[in-house]
Amino acid sequence: MSILVVGSVAFDTIETPFGRAERVLGGAASYFSVAASFFTHVNFVGVVGRDFGEQAMNAFRGRDIDLAGLERTDGETFHWKGRYSYNLNERTTVCTALNVFESFKPRLPASYRASEYVFLGNIDPVLQLDVLGQTERPRFVACDTMNFWIAGKPDELRETLKRVDVLLINDGEARELSGEWNVVKAARAIRALGPKILVVKKGEHGVLMFTEDGSFAAPAYPLEQVFDPTGAGDTFAGGFLGFLAESRSTGDEALRRAVIMGSTLASFAVEAFGLERLLALTRREIDERFRLFKKLTHFEEL
Amino acid sequence: MSILVVGSVAFDTIETPFGRAERVLGGAASYFSVAASFFTHVNFVGVVGRDFGEQAMNAFRGRDIDLAGLERTDGETFHWKGRYSYNLNERTTVCTALNVFESFKPRLPASYRASEYVFLGNIDPVLQLDVLGQTERPRFVACDTMNFWIAGKPDELRETLKRVDVLLINDGEARELSGEWNVVKAARAIRALGPKILVVKKGEHGVLMFTEDGSFAAPAYPLEQVFDPTGAGDTFAGGFLGFLAESRSTGDEALRRAVIMGSTLASFAVEAFGLERLLALTRREIDERFRLFKKLTHFEEL
Repeated sequence: MSILVVGSVAFDTIETPFGRAERVLGGAASYFSVAASFFTHVNFVGVVGRDFGEQAMNAFRGRDIDLAGLERTDGETFHWKGRYSYNLNERTTVCTALNVFESFKPRLPASYRASEYVFLGNIDPVLQLDVLGQTERPRFVACDTMNFWIAGKPDELRETLKRVDVLLINDGEARELSGEWNVVKAARAIRALGPKILVVKKGEHGVLMFTEDGSFAAPAYPLEQVFDPTGAGDTFAGGFLGFLAESRSTGDEALRRAVIMGSTLASFAVEAFGLERLLALTRREIDERFRLFKKLTHFEEL
Repeated sequence: MSILVVGSVAFDTIETPFGRAERVLGGAASYFSVAASFFTHVNFVGVVGRDFGEQAMNAFRGRDIDLAGLERTDGETFHWKGRYSYNLNERTTVCTALNVFESFKPRLPASYRASEYVFLGNIDPVLQLDVLGQTERPRFVACDTMNFWIAGKPDELRETLKRVDVLLINDGEARELSGEWNVVKAARAIRALGPKILVVKKGEHGVLMFTEDGSFAAPAYPLEQVFDPTGAGDTFAGGFLGFLAESRSTGDEALRRAVIMGSTLASFAVEAFGLERLLALTRREIDERFRLFKKLTHFEEL
């Protein structure tokens, strides 16, 4: 099974109460791919500039990530600069230089078209739909979006959502997209737009998933030290979809374990700046923390 | 097994986006007792005024609640008036008239002194300690407190905490009491003060419990309609301690199920104004929702 991912590749400059990281590799597609590559083959689609050097490329090499779809054009790589509040709960974007990402037109190499799983990272819904048009009947399509598109391209987003199996967004986005404050009502409204499955990410408060079989709640792993929340959502998506691809199932039990696997990967991602922790991670550590999630949440029936 | 509870009895006037309830029965001891009485015998200690009539008394009658410790004195019953924001996440106290509660000196009837379980509701830590002094070696002591006492009587609170087995507080209070933002660090600091067990209540985001066996995370039950959050924390405590008393265990597995039982009771409490939903509740409905909690959180091992 292979996963096609399309999304941003960036250099991030991040300030947290614990320090600062200058121009480290980031972007939705980067976090997603590294996380998903622990489980399955990843077909990567993104764009970088001439400044994207060997050191950055090395993050993807030696992993099960096909880079034929990583376009390199004249100009500079997308650069995001952000700052987190003392408790890491609020993020301020200091500056966004889209650079080569601004005119990004995803083009799928022929070898990618038959990818069984697709992750449409947070880009213009028109481009998301265009990417789907270049694929050959994928088995399962996952999608992210953000308030910018919810407010700015609502009709286009609805067209995309009609072709999506699972939407992964945060609680604020779920409220904005549905116009409902209550998350249960929001989930019903969003699932009526197309995605049979809605995954609502609540950061340190965990994840809620809504499917036709009901709802599933997972906590975030209680960490003593959260270093940098950047990329946690895309890392979650990578663990979630990677695990589904590996298990060759999208049934209720696989989806539940995929949520836990996504939470597991995300809990590692926030332990260091940027991709640092994920790049040093082993499958053994992943499976061990998955088991700790079981211990964290398990209780006996009455 | 019997539980001694000491805490406030109040008339609450509550405004939520969904309506207004005028002078309905409330107070920590009221919510706790009704919840706990589904599981075990409750010895109630509180104070009311001459205005506390038959209708209010009827809430406790016909249940396994001993009212020998409900003192009635000249004056009016504690009256609290509060207002919730449109999303129910913020509460403003409009007025607090302590009335007879201001000079409350809990006195235990002789028949209460051998209670095996004790719940010290959110009152002055000096009074909490005084209550413990009137008991005969209870098996298990649970305690609530609030920012008013954390800031106003820190030394007295520390004396009380030395004699407490489980402290149940919300996340903001845990941070204030420990001086730590991170909840894992906060838990370690608080457990070093005495309570072997810390239960951190996070409202709609569920509960975290920290014990010597590790941590346990439970979500809140995803409700489509939350009507009135008043009393949810004390209802949780009642379900938690009531279940422990019924199961005659304070081991790790009993504690985990007690957290779920507390969450179950709290999920009912918020479905209507004041005690209305709890007073109409049956044990069958409780057990059914406990099973839904299992379905909500269950996933298979790897």
